[in-house]
Amino acid sequence: MIEVALYLIPVGLSDAELSRVLPQHNIQVVREIKHFIVENVRSTRRFLKKCDRDIDIDTLTFYELNRHTRPDDIPAMLKPLSSGEAMGVISEAGCPAIADPGADVVAIAQSRGLKVIPLVGPSSILMGLMGSGFNGQSFAFLGYLPIDASQRARKFKEMEQRIVRESQTQIFIETPYRNNALVAELCRTMPPHIKLCIATNITGDGERIITRGVKQWLTMLPDLNKVPTIFLLYK
Amino acid sequence: MIEVALYLIPVGLSDAELSRVLPQHNIQVVREIKHFIVENVRSTRRFLKKCDRDIDIDTLTFYELNRHTRPDDIPAMLKPLSSGEAMGVISEAGCPAIADPGADVVAIAQSRGLKVIPLVGPSSILMGLMGSGFNGQSFAFLGYLPIDASQRARKFKEMEQRIVRESQTQIFIETPYRNNALVAELCRTMPPHIKLCIATNITGDGERIITRGVKQWLTMLPDLNKVPTIFLLYK
Repeated sequence: MIEVALYLIPVGLSDAELSRVLPQHNIQVVREIKHFIVENVRSTRRFLKKCDRDIDIDTLTFYELNRHTRPDDIPAMLKPLSSGEAMGVISEAGCPAIADPGADVVAIAQSRGLKVIPLVGPSSILMGLMGSGFNGQSFAFLGYLPIDASQRARKFKEMEQRIVRESQTQIFIETPYRNNALVAELCRTMPPHIKLCIATNITGDGERIITRGVKQWLTMLPDLNKVPTIFLLYK
Repeated sequence: MIEVALYLIPVGLSDAELSRVLPQHNIQVVREIKHFIVENVRSTRRFLKKCDRDIDIDTLTFYELNRHTRPDDIPAMLKPLSSGEAMGVISEAGCPAIADPGADVVAIAQSRGLKVIPLVGPSSILMGLMGSGFNGQSFAFLGYLPIDASQRARKFKEMEQRIVRESQTQIFIETPYRNNALVAELCRTMPPHIKLCIATNITGDGERIITRGVKQWLTMLPDLNKVPTIFLLYK
């Protein structure tokens, strides 16, 4: 029997076999949970079936938590946990509450003194950083960069300063259909002493994590249109 | 057969069974590697035996990479990889190259165009963040805080500003025997609207990840002396 807690349950980032990216323990935890707070019900069902094809999905309750959820509806989702039943949080890819929904429900659980247990799983942020060769003693994840041109230029300048002055690796993502524009812009704008790591399809078939100077990238820009990618900058 | 690459191989953070914190795939990769760049040979041997008690340690080569290693000695460690043999990087706890040695050898591999493959494993930074309920769309890991009192006070101020102005979660660690002093100082210094998450013994028996306001913590300071802990601040 598992502990009564809010389990944060990572899912894969790619089509890789679960045994490649998740500990066996996670599958055991999943099997014992009846109430799931999920970003997307359909993809969660698919994930649960991949964990164990014998899971009886019809006996489970799903609470949807995504950008369409009204904040006022979140606290009530934790009722089963408050009355002694383990719950799980599952996002669409990777680790819930990291660059994905989930943090708000965890915050409510914390404020009520409910136990929270994160499980191990793949994170493109962390795996990109490991593979980049950049500073892992000091780094920041910024999420999506601003779209507005002047705000974006300011953000680029700020990232450059934090790399130079604080030796802090800067990590960010972009809406996948804008990846190519972002890389071209970055490599043109950043000074030559800045390095860019492009990490694509992490844990997937075509995984590539490659670090080069920005001016070197300019001469060999890859096609990243709609490819799952994480970007890292350092000196 | 595994690909020829530099594999970044996480180890456990606690005494937990490996099946709790590592995917089965990692064990298969470890079994096929003969050359390891490691932070500590003794703890690596113990880890490898835990992965598979039939591994013949005497057929393996270890290259030690830690704060005693001369930077000039690092490039030569990659010779087996350059000549077509897979290599592994293993640190003392958690993920290599994240708040741990390894990034420098990865940087050299990248500069030579050698393939780097990170594997999934436990990271106290990421798991602490997942469990905290803090912002996972924007966060920074700062490593160890400065020891010097005035530098430290400046760092506290800077963290507070980044929380307030940038909504950026601030994550850091302390030398374990100074944990108690740090928490007391933080809770006294930070304004009441700041929350502190104390995450101890992640993946271990006494795992506790608890978020409270700094002034609330002041009335119930836990004893963290020499307890593996990660600290997170947010609003």
